[in-house]
Amino acid sequence: MKLTTLPDGTPDGRLHVVSRDQRRIEPAQGAQTMQALLENWDGFAPQLEAQYAALNAGGGADFDAAQALAPLPRAWQWLDGSAYDSHGDLMQKVFKMDPTPKGRPLMYQGMSHQFLAATADVPLPSEADGIDFEGEFGVICDAVPMGTDAATAQGHIRLLVQINDWSLRTLAPIEMKTGFGWVQAKPACSVAPVAVTPDELGEAWRDSRVDLPLIVDLNGARFGAAEGYPMSFGFDELVAHAARTRVLVAGTIIGSGTVSNENFREIGSSCIAERRGIELLDLGAAQTPYMQFGDRVRMECRARDGQPLFGVIDQAVVAGGS
Amino acid sequence: MKLTTLPDGTPDGRLHVVSRDQRRIEPAQGAQTMQALLENWDGFAPQLEAQYAALNAGGGADFDAAQALAPLPRAWQWLDGSAYDSHGDLMQKVFKMDPTPKGRPLMYQGMSHQFLAATADVPLPSEADGIDFEGEFGVICDAVPMGTDAATAQGHIRLLVQINDWSLRTLAPIEMKTGFGWVQAKPACSVAPVAVTPDELGEAWRDSRVDLPLIVDLNGARFGAAEGYPMSFGFDELVAHAARTRVLVAGTIIGSGTVSNENFREIGSSCIAERRGIELLDLGAAQTPYMQFGDRVRMECRARDGQPLFGVIDQAVVAGGS
Repeated sequence: MKLTTLPDGTPDGRLHVVSRDQRRIEPAQGAQTMQALLENWDGFAPQLEAQYAALNAGGGADFDAAQALAPLPRAWQWLDGSAYDSHGDLMQKVFKMDPTPKGRPLMYQGMSHQFLAATADVPLPSEADGIDFEGEFGVICDAVPMGTDAATAQGHIRLLVQINDWSLRTLAPIEMKTGFGWVQAKPACSVAPVAVTPDELGEAWRDSRVDLPLIVDLNGARFGAAEGYPMSFGFDELVAHAARTRVLVAGTIIGSGTVSNENFREIGSSCIAERRGIELLDLGAAQTPYMQFGDRVRMECRARDGQPLFGVIDQAVVAGGS
Repeated sequence: MKLTTLPDGTPDGRLHVVSRDQRRIEPAQGAQTMQALLENWDGFAPQLEAQYAALNAGGGADFDAAQALAPLPRAWQWLDGSAYDSHGDLMQKVFKMDPTPKGRPLMYQGMSHQFLAATADVPLPSEADGIDFEGEFGVICDAVPMGTDAATAQGHIRLLVQINDWSLRTLAPIEMKTGFGWVQAKPACSVAPVAVTPDELGEAWRDSRVDLPLIVDLNGARFGAAEGYPMSFGFDELVAHAARTRVLVAGTIIGSGTVSNENFREIGSSCIAERRGIELLDLGAAQTPYMQFGDRVRMECRARDGQPLFGVIDQAVVAGGS
């Protein structure tokens, strides 16, 4: 099934069921919010699946995706991986970091109290911070016990989402070199309007990976079309990694990291930093500028048959902060 | 005033006012939870201050601190600094990290969906992970706009707390070397039962620092008595650092990092890793073991005149995880 959250004046918004073609919508029965659903998935999901089937047959109101909030407008926990080695290896070269040993997922904890809507303006304090997008996929889990293994973790993946992990590249290497991870370099992320259950992807949900391309356009020009499948660790393994020493609260969101493929010179990138890294290696200097206020990024992942899945992220960065 | 949270069957518990001598308690008027108070501090605080004054004059019920939850049992955001250079410099030597440039606070985002009660058992999956405590101070803020400067940030510090930032030292350097910060190495923190407004410290709240010692005992033996004042950045500066590129949600907790002083050889340490680092430098090998299941740590910070302030953290680590 497909779900979205519409504004209702509360911080968590109102959960809605969306038809498969993403044209029709109805307030969710039972669960008032996405968080409530994730806290009692087994209790609410059967009724919602029935509602989804009925909505696909007809009825409901028109869905205006531009009105949607992030599917989970705030979450108790956001843990972002970096599971595409072609991206990670390149960034380590560019930042002159020691290569990290393989065999262990990379993951940091990011800001989770605010996820921006997919079409909302993105207020950031300074163009000098190196404003960049990161197109990625994510999963939302129900509660995961400490010590859960990857095989069991797979069953806790309830929803898939598409994320823009906003990044400030002037600050990122400074924070990374401390070993403490990112605070200033990682402001609020944006999330595409529709969260989908894994079965909506059919065979494209494969080995706990999204086997579909993420199309990224910057100011109307194609920037990247990287495939989601080549993660060095599947989401099941990322969830298990996160749960190694902690309980994962229901509504934990876990990200893939910037989608990236080995042939990034041909298919492009899901963030500017990667393209600049390629330019640095190939041309001796980065040439593509980071974003300026007013610049827009668009991200979309559709099924192979063209059916919409997560909806579209399409938003501009604007001057913000006091 | 002094505040605590008692269990009432909900995840956020029920906010209570505590008398200055920490013997008496009453359900808070107006604000039902600590989170609600922080979301509307100016609306609720005057009535609570009046209630606190009346409770100090008499009335209320007996306060059993062992029943208290963490003052904020879950928070939308937990950002922990490392503002004691004597600790940070030593850890960098021990972990063979490059020294971080001074002049910029160190900070990571940690798990915030669960803060353990001060007397609760601490379930952790393995003694082999290098179980360690970290005694520190923290502040809880109301909402802080993006770009707030340190002078303004000071006014957003509404409450002070005392924290045990549980750390797994076998995992910490592995995660630190990736540059992504800690996920597995930083499970849920514990918090002393009483949160206090800065005025409760009188002159001991100085330059946005807690000018009082934190007494740490391990299995009944004195382990450290480091002074809280020598932070290289005050909490006002830590809050401003955190708010540089993001809005801080009401209820954001910001930590000092492990309390540590230059004369740690004389006064001891607030974590085992620091003592082991000193042993490594002075004796050629670490000698103090990390914690085993059943070991207890106790932490307390009182006013110079002996008045209780935050109450006591006193808890054991136990085997946990599936």
